[in-house]
Amino acid sequence: MADTRGSESPLSADALRKMDRYWHACNYLAAGMIYLRENPLLREPLKPGHIKNRLLGHWGSDAGQSFVLVHLNRLIKKLNLDVIYIAGPGHGAPATLASCYLEGHYSEIYPDRSEDEAGMRQFFRQFSFPGGIGSHCTPETPGSIHEGGELGYSLSHGYGAAFDNPDLIVAVVVGDGEAETGPLATSWHSNKFLNPIRDGAVLPILHLNGYKIANPTILARIPHEELEALFIGYGHRPYFVEGDDPAQMHQKMAATMEHCIEEIRAIQQHARSTGSARRPRWPMIVLRSPKGWTGPREVDGHKVEGSWRAHQVPVLDPATNETSLKLVESWMRRYRPEELFDESGRLVAELRELAPTGTRRISANPHANGGLLCRALDMPSFREYGVDVTTPASRYVSPTDVLGKFLCEVMRRNMSNFRVFGPDETSSNKLTAIYEASQKTWLAETIADDADGGELSVDGRVMEMLSEHTLEGWFEGYVLTGRHGLFATYEAFVHVIDSMFNQHAKWLEKAKRELRWRQPVPSINLLITSLVWRQDHNGFTHQDPGFLDVVTNKSPDVVRIYLPPDANCLLSVADHCLRSRDYVNVIVADKQPHLQYLDMDAAVTHCTKGIGIWEWASTDQHADPDVVMACAGDIPTMESLAAVEILKAQFPDLKIRFVNVVDLFRLMPDTEHPHGLSDRDFDSIFTADKPVIFNFHSYSSLVHKLSYKRNNHDNMHVHGYREKGNINTPLELAIINEVDRFSLAIDVIDRVPRLRGVGDHAKEWLRGQIIEHLAYAHAEGIDREEIRNWTWAGEGTRA
Amino acid sequence: MADTRGSESPLSADALRKMDRYWHACNYLAAGMIYLRENPLLREPLKPGHIKNRLLGHWGSDAGQSFVLVHLNRLIKKLNLDVIYIAGPGHGAPATLASCYLEGHYSEIYPDRSEDEAGMRQFFRQFSFPGGIGSHCTPETPGSIHEGGELGYSLSHGYGAAFDNPDLIVAVVVGDGEAETGPLATSWHSNKFLNPIRDGAVLPILHLNGYKIANPTILARIPHEELEALFIGYGHRPYFVEGDDPAQMHQKMAATMEHCIEEIRAIQQHARSTGSARRPRWPMIVLRSPKGWTGPREVDGHKVEGSWRAHQVPVLDPATNETSLKLVESWMRRYRPEELFDESGRLVAELRELAPTGTRRISANPHANGGLLCRALDMPSFREYGVDVTTPASRYVSPTDVLGKFLCEVMRRNMSNFRVFGPDETSSNKLTAIYEASQKTWLAETIADDADGGELSVDGRVMEMLSEHTLEGWFEGYVLTGRHGLFATYEAFVHVIDSMFNQHAKWLEKAKRELRWRQPVPSINLLITSLVWRQDHNGFTHQDPGFLDVVTNKSPDVVRIYLPPDANCLLSVADHCLRSRDYVNVIVADKQPHLQYLDMDAAVTHCTKGIGIWEWASTDQHADPDVVMACAGDIPTMESLAAVEILKAQFPDLKIRFVNVVDLFRLMPDTEHPHGLSDRDFDSIFTADKPVIFNFHSYSSLVHKLSYKRNNHDNMHVHGYREKGNINTPLELAIINEVDRFSLAIDVIDRVPRLRGVGDHAKEWLRGQIIEHLAYAHAEGIDREEIRNWTWAGEGTRA
Repeated sequence: MADTRGSESPLSADALRKMDRYWHACNYLAAGMIYLRENPLLREPLKPGHIKNRLLGHWGSDAGQSFVLVHLNRLIKKLNLDVIYIAGPGHGAPATLASCYLEGHYSEIYPDRSEDEAGMRQFFRQFSFPGGIGSHCTPETPGSIHEGGELGYSLSHGYGAAFDNPDLIVAVVVGDGEAETGPLATSWHSNKFLNPIRDGAVLPILHLNGYKIANPTILARIPHEELEALFIGYGHRPYFVEGDDPAQMHQKMAATMEHCIEEIRAIQQHARSTGSARRPRWPMIVLRSPKGWTGPREVDGHKVEGSWRAHQVPVLDPATNETSLKLVESWMRRYRPEELFDESGRLVAELRELAPTGTRRISANPHANGGLLCRALDMPSFREYGVDVTTPASRYVSPTDVLGKFLCEVMRRNMSNFRVFGPDETSSNKLTAIYEASQKTWLAETIADDADGGELSVDGRVMEMLSEHTLEGWFEGYVLTGRHGLFATYEAFVHVIDSMFNQHAKWLEKAKRELRWRQPVPSINLLITSLVWRQDHNGFTHQDPGFLDVVTNKSPDVVRIYLPPDANCLLSVADHCLRSRDYVNVIVADKQPHLQYLDMDAAVTHCTKGIGIWEWASTDQHADPDVVMACAGDIPTMESLAAVEILKAQFPDLKIRFVNVVDLFRLMPDTEHPHGLSDRDFDSIFTADKPVIFNFHSYSSLVHKLSYKRNNHDNMHVHGYREKGNINTPLELAIINEVDRFSLAIDVIDRVPRLRGVGDHAKEWLRGQIIEHLAYAHAEGIDREEIRNWTWAGEGTRA
Repeated sequence: MADTRGSESPLSADALRKMDRYWHACNYLAAGMIYLRENPLLREPLKPGHIKNRLLGHWGSDAGQSFVLVHLNRLIKKLNLDVIYIAGPGHGAPATLASCYLEGHYSEIYPDRSEDEAGMRQFFRQFSFPGGIGSHCTPETPGSIHEGGELGYSLSHGYGAAFDNPDLIVAVVVGDGEAETGPLATSWHSNKFLNPIRDGAVLPILHLNGYKIANPTILARIPHEELEALFIGYGHRPYFVEGDDPAQMHQKMAATMEHCIEEIRAIQQHARSTGSARRPRWPMIVLRSPKGWTGPREVDGHKVEGSWRAHQVPVLDPATNETSLKLVESWMRRYRPEELFDESGRLVAELRELAPTGTRRISANPHANGGLLCRALDMPSFREYGVDVTTPASRYVSPTDVLGKFLCEVMRRNMSNFRVFGPDETSSNKLTAIYEASQKTWLAETIADDADGGELSVDGRVMEMLSEHTLEGWFEGYVLTGRHGLFATYEAFVHVIDSMFNQHAKWLEKAKRELRWRQPVPSINLLITSLVWRQDHNGFTHQDPGFLDVVTNKSPDVVRIYLPPDANCLLSVADHCLRSRDYVNVIVADKQPHLQYLDMDAAVTHCTKGIGIWEWASTDQHADPDVVMACAGDIPTMESLAAVEILKAQFPDLKIRFVNVVDLFRLMPDTEHPHGLSDRDFDSIFTADKPVIFNFHSYSSLVHKLSYKRNNHDNMHVHGYREKGNINTPLELAIINEVDRFSLAIDVIDRVPRLRGVGDHAKEWLRGQIIEHLAYAHAEGIDREEIRNWTWAGEGTRA
């Protein structure tokens, strides 16, 4: 395959000269950001006092990224393209910031960083300076939807942005360091999920600048034929732009990038005119340029340009070392700032013309401020999908099955801005009904057998790939560009994306709290299912409800956790979450059939309050109870209710208050979380001094973590997962972790003063029940039948 | 490239027939495990009562995996190979278990599952049955080091096992579902880190059986030329074994696998005889066989063999549906159990001869029970690497820099069973001294420039790749086969491997608590550095100390957390961890220069106790203090000490007790964690009723989570990270999260009753200090100098 396509020298001498100067301006600004606190235009000789006290920032990939941006700008203007840019390499923000500043948009948003000498000084000073901005493409960076503090997600973010944006081209620069991460390595396969008719295009540009922080990169050190084969294997048509001579590289890149855009347009045009969306081999570019390109070649006898030593600050001590100062000055003067900027300090008019204008500027493209383009979902009434509940706890229904039918209608009404994500588990998670509205996206090969239940379609809107990383990356890219979705995943393996969740929550927090120009974007909705308590099939490895701990560490501004106890509550919660903006909503709901408790009105009331006393399950008649039975989560709720039934039978005059928690942050003080209860309200529910037996879905310590400041905290006894399990039956698993009805009832007897002694006989009987149930499970291996022989009326209880 | 190599039909008719029958025996057992609770040898007609009450387990990849195992056995015997086997596909345990049982080793370990009819019945019943074993290759599975409950790590585990085991061949079956995960996708590049002289070989076998749970797999649905290119791109030489006719497939696989082994041997021999360890193109096999091979072709009019419907249980209702029962019976009888097993129920002698014997059996290979082969590290005295501390807090030293020198000597003494892992950050994390003992492993290309500080070597023992997943996978494979190591990583991005940590902790727990035949293996030692409190460079995205929350959710049997406050403590802790077995040890220690507090004797005493009162920093002279200043972590310790200095100056008669925590689990009750303190000891340190101002490295809620049961808990006021940050200076970051000296001193004034009112003036001054420091940081951007103007003697305090 040829290295480049199209005319070998598409740029006229004049165009080449201008583009090269524009690139110089970018590189000058990048160096200025790293070094200068004064004298931004070098209008006087550089002095130690002009240098920042502490030098921070990364030079390594800046020139390469600016090079890409200059060439993207040429084609945006020439072909009136709609392009956003994603900077994969970590810490490459100077390139993006420089381009953004030169386009004028930075000054529009931040008027103190104006297009003049004073503004440029401020622009330099703010960079990597306390109170300023970081060296990644943080939320403060106009045009960015990808900070890249953690590496690995540039490409999946890019595809997420491209879905359902048929006219958009997402240029994604993938760093060759980032390319070594797992999430990035598999995200190349995203091209099997991109429909050339309905979706936009992604143009990946692998930036082979050769080095990470301290090492060469793998992809820079394999033979050309392996590298080329790898990308052909990933389904791309790779084009190579390699070298270090700027003039030659400009011509090569101009030709190659234009050819790639033409190829993209031809692919799209062909697919759109024929209606055939078969997977094409999308083009991609491999840009091999020196790390620290155009920077100092050598410092202190060590090679810097083209070496890992160019990664961060190439010259370390200009403030204290005269030679170094001269080196920085001569390097920066090589860009000829006096020819780039006019008297006022603004980019000269001849170069300003090179940049696109208005919303065609990459820095001002509204897709990168997705809230601007966001359309609210057309939502059906979730009430119509509810389960009839006349008697609480008399029917078994799979909550996610019910949800699936609702989501199907949400999908049907929003066929251009809603997608559902899941790792090959949408059916397993009982959301199968969605397929009636839209099938699974699939542009890889199909065979005749697929017609039998395969539900594959090039037009599908259900995204299934066995990579939680890729799915979450797509989803983030999708919401950050203003669209909506839901990601359903196995509970234990949502930990796979812990780190991605952290990064996205941090992005949201900054955007929401500090950047008024960023419009709110739809929430990330994570449906966590296939829960810890139903792992008779998968065993110990699939038992980890600890994602909630990770979530509770993030800012109260941006995270929400819901544990709907039944299907109607799940519908109410899901409706709320899908309408929300700027959160990560975590919904915990199992896929197995569960008892249903609340009719729709009660469910809506309960979920709106987020916590409530269930009168019908309580026996305290609004009086002071002997004990509060609290619970959160579907299985814990059932077991707590069953325990109440047992206790009622054994101790008819025991006053029990039954409390269910849907919105977990209700447990926190209102001073710490916007959903928190005041101490007064908390006490009115949990009492100030009565024992609280709290049955919790996840690790018990999380309830203590949220509620330790409460008056009655010392009296809260939380049952939860204790990291004990195997392929147990559900009741057996509950028993060994003591979230089962019998253990709860025993705990009540132990904690309620007036049952001491009186309750001994009952305790013995309860212990007998536990032994009998365990023996039964081991002898017969019966699965979930054993928990079904209990109904609200209490007749069927084994008790 | 040709599909197969070597002779096209290497198997004689007799050998083919026997191997095929052995394979039938495997498949028969796999089906039996899924279906039968009685009548294991089908000696009577199959009746509903013989069928398990609940059918669980996965048939899909079993026959394919057994096929691989049968062929591996042939070559182990023929060539006297040393082979372990890693089952990548999830839930494929029936294949491994069947092979293990037929080799006799299962019965040696579990005598009740003997090689006769009664044992086979028990062998079937235990599978996916309460109280029995799961359908993954759980720790209970002899020969397994890889459970595979979560997908993605088979190949990195395989490489970890192969490192430093020059005679070992690790056969890794990679499921094509698993192949879609990020961690697996990048782990193919592990071949750039395998030295053919010093290390063993990995033979990856991609099992293209076409389907995941409910979808086709990507790699099964790309054109042959893309698939082949992909693996050439990954640096392999792929061989294809494709088809469904058993006889032809046996011949193809026999030829191909033998060719691959010959190629491996030739590569090794060439490298070992020439001493040249250049990276070869290692062979790999793509096995394309039908999902559910040899199972029912069609059920209820739907294709099953060769479809996703074969993933789990192919016939769902044999206990209640006569047609289904017949289908299962005829399927199982097709394997002719009566010809496979003798009268007693044991595999017939003619077939038993096909399996290897003794420790050559895959199920009994000692590498898969690594503790058997484990040699203790030859440890230097860590005391010799200590820092001189005559006056506490008078010197700044980078703790990890000190540790690096110690690790260098550990490395030097253990050049065949110790490795250090880190994602391109070993230097950044200041462990650079290690390179004096051993360089970075690198078998990709090198260039002349690398000589200048590149530290790359084919013989290197420092493993650096920008994939935390791959590194952790290698490390797990390395320790599970009995070798030692340490993994240093940025704090925020250790979350990348949360899920891997969970899985490994679960493996250890099962192995340690329930399986006496599994010998203890070296611990996973995670050095968490580049901490939250020093992110002036990287900003908000790099601030997440929440990994500790994830760790505390796991069983107290297997997790440990240490926060050494200075370099000598770090040495003591590291020495302890490197000698330990069967834990995940998490060590939190920063790379930046920090004040040093304890001389070596004091450090050893302090770390041995794990928690202690620092008399030299206290002013309570063993009497009842007014306040307890507690801390855990290096920065929190410094700030707490500085607060004490301020308070001493302001309130000379205030009685302060200074407590430092190294071993975080000391905070838990001794009833819940083996390292926990008794309530009595806890009270003797923290008092029963005095205010405790606890300055903590991570999120404050974690301290509450661990200590909420303590008597004095209501009086514990914990300062920690509050998810507030940017590219702040260290003191600024401390201030906005209120872990700084000034905020701590204010809190003391607020909490100590006798300072109320009296302390108002001091509080005002402290608030002024905060404002002044923040203003100074924003004006000058000075970094860490501002925190250095404080020494233990107190003279230099800004105060």
